[in-house]
Amino acid sequence: MRIGIDMMGGDYAPQEAVKGVLQYLQSSSPVVPLTLIGDEQPVRSLFQDIPEILRFVHAPEIIGMNEHATRALKEKPESSIAKGFKLLAAGEIDAFVSAGNTGAMMVGTFYNIKSIEGVLRPTISTLMPQINGGYSLILDVGLNADCKAENLFQFAVLGSLYAQHILKIEDPRVALLNIGEEEGKGNLLAQAAYPLLKASPQIHFIGNIEGRDILTGKADVMVTEGFTGNVLLKMAESLYDVATHRGFGEDEYFQRFHYENYGGTPILGVSKPVIIGHGISGAAAFRNMIVLAQKMLESDLLSKMKASFVI
Amino acid sequence: MRIGIDMMGGDYAPQEAVKGVLQYLQSSSPVVPLTLIGDEQPVRSLFQDIPEILRFVHAPEIIGMNEHATRALKEKPESSIAKGFKLLAAGEIDAFVSAGNTGAMMVGTFYNIKSIEGVLRPTISTLMPQINGGYSLILDVGLNADCKAENLFQFAVLGSLYAQHILKIEDPRVALLNIGEEEGKGNLLAQAAYPLLKASPQIHFIGNIEGRDILTGKADVMVTEGFTGNVLLKMAESLYDVATHRGFGEDEYFQRFHYENYGGTPILGVSKPVIIGHGISGAAAFRNMIVLAQKMLESDLLSKMKASFVI
Repeated sequence: MRIGIDMMGGDYAPQEAVKGVLQYLQSSSPVVPLTLIGDEQPVRSLFQDIPEILRFVHAPEIIGMNEHATRALKEKPESSIAKGFKLLAAGEIDAFVSAGNTGAMMVGTFYNIKSIEGVLRPTISTLMPQINGGYSLILDVGLNADCKAENLFQFAVLGSLYAQHILKIEDPRVALLNIGEEEGKGNLLAQAAYPLLKASPQIHFIGNIEGRDILTGKADVMVTEGFTGNVLLKMAESLYDVATHRGFGEDEYFQRFHYENYGGTPILGVSKPVIIGHGISGAAAFRNMIVLAQKMLESDLLSKMKASFVI
Repeated sequence: MRIGIDMMGGDYAPQEAVKGVLQYLQSSSPVVPLTLIGDEQPVRSLFQDIPEILRFVHAPEIIGMNEHATRALKEKPESSIAKGFKLLAAGEIDAFVSAGNTGAMMVGTFYNIKSIEGVLRPTISTLMPQINGGYSLILDVGLNADCKAENLFQFAVLGSLYAQHILKIEDPRVALLNIGEEEGKGNLLAQAAYPLLKASPQIHFIGNIEGRDILTGKADVMVTEGFTGNVLLKMAESLYDVATHRGFGEDEYFQRFHYENYGGTPILGVSKPVIIGHGISGAAAFRNMIVLAQKMLESDLLSKMKASFVI
């Protein structure tokens, strides 16, 4: 088991990536071998000693945060992102973590890593802090701006497995985000998705939830299309700043909206763990992303997802 | 000029409606004549003296908060909502305010009050408290769960006029709620709406805004379809409870998310002012709804909207 880390991704790379690796090595047990992908000398020079568990792969090129994803991947085969995906596809690493160009991470995933057979559209999720403690998963949060009912159903299955095996929630309650509580409410998409969710023996579907329930612990997994989900994700992220502005930045609950505290989001529905971090990721976010990749590998989440989509 | 009020609508009617009327009469200047529609004796008995400016219209039937809208309106012609719309259609009142059954208010509006000529779909909006002070308008917030680009464009025109004449914002900045900042981003609907908004000389379009901008004062009018808008409205409403739960219920900013403090929402795009309040409306919400109706009449907003849709 080996996790690959893009050391050049994110606004504070490679310094924060290195700090995150060190935090991971100090705070986690057992630790997994890591492959650090990036401009080798500068990255090495940031370590005082090189722990034995680290391996380096030199990647002299960098894909900038605002570069065109497809073009950059094509024109920069020696970039840390392009190399990371090559290593992942070849099985030299088992998971890949980056806080770099999100578009390039998406395109890299789709070009290099197969979708799980039967999954129509991979998805990304975020953790929404709940007022009564813990987190609920909401998905999709932006990968799929236009969805069909079948996509929402598959997001529910993927999210439910993630909640079960990574968040350790037994029998996670899955809800459809909607604009009314009763069956039959909603836009055409929600109306079409509801019966698919209701009929499935694979998930514990509790029905519709509304906007007021997003933070109140009513559901463990909340399913929606990527437009509404992305707007909610970004609005939720802004709540930490809002609270800080009002002088409540130290509040434990509002702090949980701070991106740093939970790290990155995995692309669900592809056959290997790929975790994408926020551009502003600091050391804690890098550490958390490595921990998440480790959990995904140790729980064998991907095999469970694959088994769920066998026809 | 005369405003009609449904005295039987809302969870705390008629007591809170009566208190709201009294608050309005005490705090506003000049006051507009009011027509109180409801079960006359119980309503009258809640006043110590009857101010001369009040007129009563007896409506012995009540439409419950959970009744089927169309059926209830048909079967209860003597209800306060049915009577209110008859008075409004006949010109005996110039605006109608209710905190009653939202569905019945919608159906009543569409059956009795014409849309403004050229408006494809009337819309409802809400005020989103901004961290730097003031409010921005977001629409649609639930009347139109599925929209076409042309609908979003018309919401922008209606919202811009409302912001200008009611919120008194000169040259309101109109933005398209989206999942990326650049033109071309978004779901199919947002991609199609952007050029319509950009090309219009009727509005001051500033481009896309994202979820993180909803509370930060970046735009005065934010346009989206009724699914996303409704989820955001209800999530925003929950922020007051969240803040209270964390011990910040007294914070001035979070208090502004409390529904009570801004009252109801007008149906925009119909030819007369109809204002719908939250079921939990208390006295202040009733007063604020009456004030809003008065502003809509005094500013002659409806004529300005009609003029905007003349082809």
